Amino acid sequence: MRLRIDFSYDGTDFAGWAKQPGLHTVQGTLDGALATILRMDTIQSTVAGRTDAGVHATRQTAHVDVDQSVEPGQLIRQLNSILSSEPIHIHRVTAAPPGFDARYSPMFRRYEYRVSDAVGNRDPRTRHFTLWIDDHLDMDLMNKAATSLLGLHDWTTYCKPRPGATRVRELQIFRWRRENDGTLVAEVQADAFCHNMVRNLVGMCIAVGRGKLNVSDAVALREERTRTSAFIVIPPHGLTLVEVGYPVDDEVGARAELSRTRREPV
Amino acid sequence: MRLRIDFSYDGTDFAGWAKQPGLHTVQGTLDGALATILRMDTIQSTVAGRTDAGVHATRQTAHVDVDQSVEPGQLIRQLNSILSSEPIHIHRVTAAPPGFDARYSPMFRRYEYRVSDAVGNRDPRTRHFTLWIDDHLDMDLMNKAATSLLGLHDWTTYCKPRPGATRVRELQIFRWRRENDGTLVAEVQADAFCHNMVRNLVGMCIAVGRGKLNVSDAVALREERTRTSAFIVIPPHGLTLVEVGYPVDDEVGARAELSRTRREPV
Repeated sequence: MRLRIDFSYDGTDFAGWAKQPGLHTVQGTLDGALATILRMDTIQSTVAGRTDAGVHATRQTAHVDVDQSVEPGQLIRQLNSILSSEPIHIHRVTAAPPGFDARYSPMFRRYEYRVSDAVGNRDPRTRHFTLWIDDHLDMDLMNKAATSLLGLHDWTTYCKPRPGATRVRELQIFRWRRENDGTLVAEVQADAFCHNMVRNLVGMCIAVGRGKLNVSDAVALREERTRTSAFIVIPPHGLTLVEVGYPVDDEVGARAELSRTRREPV
Repeated sequence: MRLRIDFSYDGTDFAGWAKQPGLHTVQGTLDGALATILRMDTIQSTVAGRTDAGVHATRQTAHVDVDQSVEPGQLIRQLNSILSSEPIHIHRVTAAPPGFDARYSPMFRRYEYRVSDAVGNRDPRTRHFTLWIDDHLDMDLMNKAATSLLGLHDWTTYCKPRPGATRVRELQIFRWRRENDGTLVAEVQADAFCHNMVRNLVGMCIAVGRGKLNVSDAVALREERTRTSAFIVIPPHGLTLVEVGYPVDDEVGARAELSRTRREPV
C-alpha cells in the first residue's frame, strides 16, 4: 500500500531533508516516526522537494510504501502525537492513487523567498525564515529581470551541477511582491528545480536590485550556460517550499513516467 | 536628553520585559546595550507595554533619559550592531518631544493574538507565535462576544488584580479575522490594558468559540467584577504587541498627565 503524506516543517534545526547518519534530518525524523508506529524495520520515504539544510516547507508531499493496511485518520493523529516536539506537522495522510510518485508526478513546485531590506520594518519573530539585508532593493528592476527568464531553458548557470542530469526546466512563475510590512517575497514556480536553482535565481535578482547587475544580465548569463561569479547563491533560511501541484488521480502515473524519462541521467 | 526608541522583539527566549537579576529580559538587554554604547553606569528605560514572558512585540516604544547629546542615526546602527545576536531589532531612535512619556503618553495599545484551530493548515515556522488548538472554533460567535464588550468599563473579571489601581479601561477594538492560511487573529485595542487582560479576553472568546460559554456570558461575567473559573488565561506565546499610538508632539505632555491621574493608585 502506497501512502501520500502532506506535511510542513521549520527547517531551521534540520540538516536538510535527506537522511544522514547521526544528523537531525526531516526524512530521518519522519521515517523513524512511521517505522515506530507501523512496527516496520525500515521506511524509505520519497519526497517532492529535497530541501537543503535550513530550508522550510509549508506544503511538502512524500510517499511511502507500507506492508500493511493503514487507517489514514488514525495515522495522522499518531504521527502528530509522536512528532509533537519536532518542528514538523502532518496535514494529511491518504491512500495514493495508482502510479503516484511524490517526486516524479508533480506538474510544478512553487517556492517563496523572503527578504527584508528595510531597517524600519523588521520582525524578529520571522527572522529564521527571512533574509535581512541592509541595502534597499529596487523591486521594479528585480521584476524585470525575473520576468525575462520565464520559459523552457537550460539553467546550467543557475544550478549546482549533477553529472549526467539535464538542466532543462520550465520556469513558470517568477515575480516579486511587497507584503504590507515591507517584506519582499519572490514567488518562483517551475515543473522541477535543479539543485540550488531558486537560491541562485534570487541571488541574481538581489544583485540587480542593488544595482550590481543589469536587468539584461539575467538572460545573458543564462545563455552562457556556465557557472558564474556575477552573483552569489543566497542563504537557505529565506526559502520555503509552499506548494507542490499534482495532476488529477488518473494522470499521476503517466506524468511520473514522463518526468523520469526527461530528467534522469541517460 | 530624552530619547524615544521604537523596536521589536521575539519574546520566546525572554523572561518578559521587566529587568530581573540573572534573567534574560528585554529591558535588561536593551538597557545594557545602551549603557555600553553611552558609557553610562545605569540606564533605566520606560516602556509602553510591559510584556510578560513569551509575549512578542513588532512595534514597541520606550524612552530613556541620557546625560549627553546623542546622534540618533549613529545610535540606531550601534544598537543593532551590539544586539545582532539578540532577537531584538531597533527601528527608530529620535529625540523625544517635551513631556513625552512612553508609558503614559499613548492614546492606545493594539495587540494581536494568533490561534490555529485547523490541523490541515499549520505552519511550524510560526509556531512560536501562534497557539495551536485541536478544536475548530466558531469565529462568528467569537466576534459577537468580542463586540459585546466594547467601551469604557471595569475589567476586574478579565484582569490579574493590582492593589489600589483602577481596572477601568476603554476597549476600543476587539475583533477576529481569518488569514488566508486559516489562522484566526484577534485584534484588541484599548487606551491601556490591565495585567493579563488580553489573554483573559482571548481565553473567554475561545471558550465561546468551542461552545463552552454563551455569547451573553462575556458581558455577564464582566459585570460580576470578580475573578472567574469560567474561562482560562490563554498561553502568552500567541500574543504580540503590534502598535502603540501617540498623539501629535505638542499633546504628548498633556496626555501623559491625564493618564497618570486616571490610572495610578490614589
